Amino acid sequence: MKVKTQLGLLALTVMANFVFSCNEPQPETESGSGVSTVVADPLPSWNEGASKKSIIDFVNDATKEGGSDFIPVEDRIAVFDNDGTLWPEQPVPNQLMFAIDNLRAFALTHPEFQKDAVLKGVLDGDIGLLKKAGIPGLLKLINASHNNQTEAAFSRAVLNWADTAKDKKFGKLYKEVIYQPMVELLNYLRAHDFKTFIVSGGGADFMRPWCEEAYGIPPYQVIGSYGELRYDVVDGKPVITKVAGEPFIDDKTGKPLAIHRFIGKVPVFCAGNSDGDQAMMQYTSSSKYKSLCLIVHHTDSVREYRYDLKTLSGHLETTLVEAKEKNWLVVDMKNDFNRIFLFDK
Amino acid sequence: MKVKTQLGLLALTVMANFVFSCNEPQPETESGSGVSTVVADPLPSWNEGASKKSIIDFVNDATKEGGSDFIPVEDRIAVFDNDGTLWPEQPVPNQLMFAIDNLRAFALTHPEFQKDAVLKGVLDGDIGLLKKAGIPGLLKLINASHNNQTEAAFSRAVLNWADTAKDKKFGKLYKEVIYQPMVELLNYLRAHDFKTFIVSGGGADFMRPWCEEAYGIPPYQVIGSYGELRYDVVDGKPVITKVAGEPFIDDKTGKPLAIHRFIGKVPVFCAGNSDGDQAMMQYTSSSKYKSLCLIVHHTDSVREYRYDLKTLSGHLETTLVEAKEKNWLVVDMKNDFNRIFLFDK
Repeated sequence: MKVKTQLGLLALTVMANFVFSCNEPQPETESGSGVSTVVADPLPSWNEGASKKSIIDFVNDATKEGGSDFIPVEDRIAVFDNDGTLWPEQPVPNQLMFAIDNLRAFALTHPEFQKDAVLKGVLDGDIGLLKKAGIPGLLKLINASHNNQTEAAFSRAVLNWADTAKDKKFGKLYKEVIYQPMVELLNYLRAHDFKTFIVSGGGADFMRPWCEEAYGIPPYQVIGSYGELRYDVVDGKPVITKVAGEPFIDDKTGKPLAIHRFIGKVPVFCAGNSDGDQAMMQYTSSSKYKSLCLIVHHTDSVREYRYDLKTLSGHLETTLVEAKEKNWLVVDMKNDFNRIFLFDK
Repeated sequence: MKVKTQLGLLALTVMANFVFSCNEPQPETESGSGVSTVVADPLPSWNEGASKKSIIDFVNDATKEGGSDFIPVEDRIAVFDNDGTLWPEQPVPNQLMFAIDNLRAFALTHPEFQKDAVLKGVLDGDIGLLKKAGIPGLLKLINASHNNQTEAAFSRAVLNWADTAKDKKFGKLYKEVIYQPMVELLNYLRAHDFKTFIVSGGGADFMRPWCEEAYGIPPYQVIGSYGELRYDVVDGKPVITKVAGEPFIDDKTGKPLAIHRFIGKVPVFCAGNSDGDQAMMQYTSSSKYKSLCLIVHHTDSVREYRYDLKTLSGHLETTLVEAKEKNWLVVDMKNDFNRIFLFDK
């Protein structure tokens, strides 16, 4: 319980920081490199180079029967963080945008939101009071926009949001603003009999409705933070309701614990982008097989965002240090990706 | 938390009852029916009849593209209870036998067990004090045999137990005393692109080490009760430890909640054998697709055990009533199974 609470506070602190002080992307002088494609290349959005070679070598070794680094199919478990690894997490995590949008949608049937100064502020487009309210205010926003509703209704709300809400910077649906090289990597691994899982700090119920379409990952391979649930039979029909309560926060050391709880095997491949993924990289590195840990380093201020140390979302510091010690692969988005989004020219 | 605690107490009460008063199998006069096999029959251990026909009709309908009852591959989710549905749960659930066996194994390195009267009694083969100690005593046994050890060590202990411990009635390894008709059903569903999951009140960590070998179900499709975990880095290596704490009990209404949490889809097929499975049958019946709920009715006192109402493990009463209302399939083990175990003649 202690661990959960500490993790919960940590995650909330990070989310609060998003609200209180938005990240200032660092300026950069050069633009991304040109596009290069090779016929039948499984990773066409990756530039040729050491990063791409490391990935292909790992997969070749893992699938070479009789080889010293062969991994049996049943142990080919690959885990991916979501925010900052498969889609952007700047200027704030997309789930916070959903929380605000969903609060607005729910406000139509929840007049009591107007009586709460913080929620009213958010509804009026003024997050000043939310900032002042600190973590209790953020908890209020998350609870009002995520809980006390059936999982069926919440799922429909997420699907509707995913089908309509657009990222302001890119002018595209959020579910389209996903890293094409990473989608190719997911497909490449699956084509070689790896099971691909998402292991994200984001809410599982928030990700599952659209992850199958976006990434080809079914709900039962999407692991995230989750809260309490209640089961009722209403008019002869079972109803599951999301209720307030102490959530499980799938971040930092919560990630290897969730991997054990949901997958029950040590992964052999792990992709992440922040110190929140460090523990699951350590866990992956402890595999009895040769493993690959991959860090998506946000180095492209033109095509996406440039950040690592000086950011409140996706802080990357100690993991870069451990990456050197443990030979984890640091992918340089600016130089390793010839295309970041499918809609890039 | 309230729900969890109530569920926890309920499950413990049931387990306590196992200890305090063992089930008296009901006598039966006739033996099972003869063996009949058909070439290329996917369910050779099932006798021809209404039950087998219902299953085959369901699968044919679900997989007939363009048909009114077609189910897309991604929604073919099948859930199976374990105790009493895939393997016996009489005279006591096998996990209780493991707890006692494992306590003995751990006692070699845990001299402190000898100082506890209840644990000493169990170690000496006298469960009198355990019975008198009630639920706190049972909690003590479960905690001493399951917690305060790394998940790697626990997993090895379970594997070792599964490779050596024998069911007294059948004289075979517990992992061999599994219902062959149900194993065929698992294979038959998988051959038609159903994903098969276990959703059991048993411990997930207790089931996962041997379920892949026994049933062909990988750990990430084995859902069970689970407890708290702790993550540490010891000598540079990540270590996950099972610790005491409020467990999640995957029984009764806990089952649909676990299905939502771990699978994120409403099943279309559900197999169970007791009132502990009723809620997940209700949940399955709420699918937008035509679903099939199957109840394994223990009617064979000669080849296995005969019980339903008058048992403390696998009590089946209200589910039989709802089965009539909702047209759930009640499988009569004596008449529908021409073979119960692979080792049967």
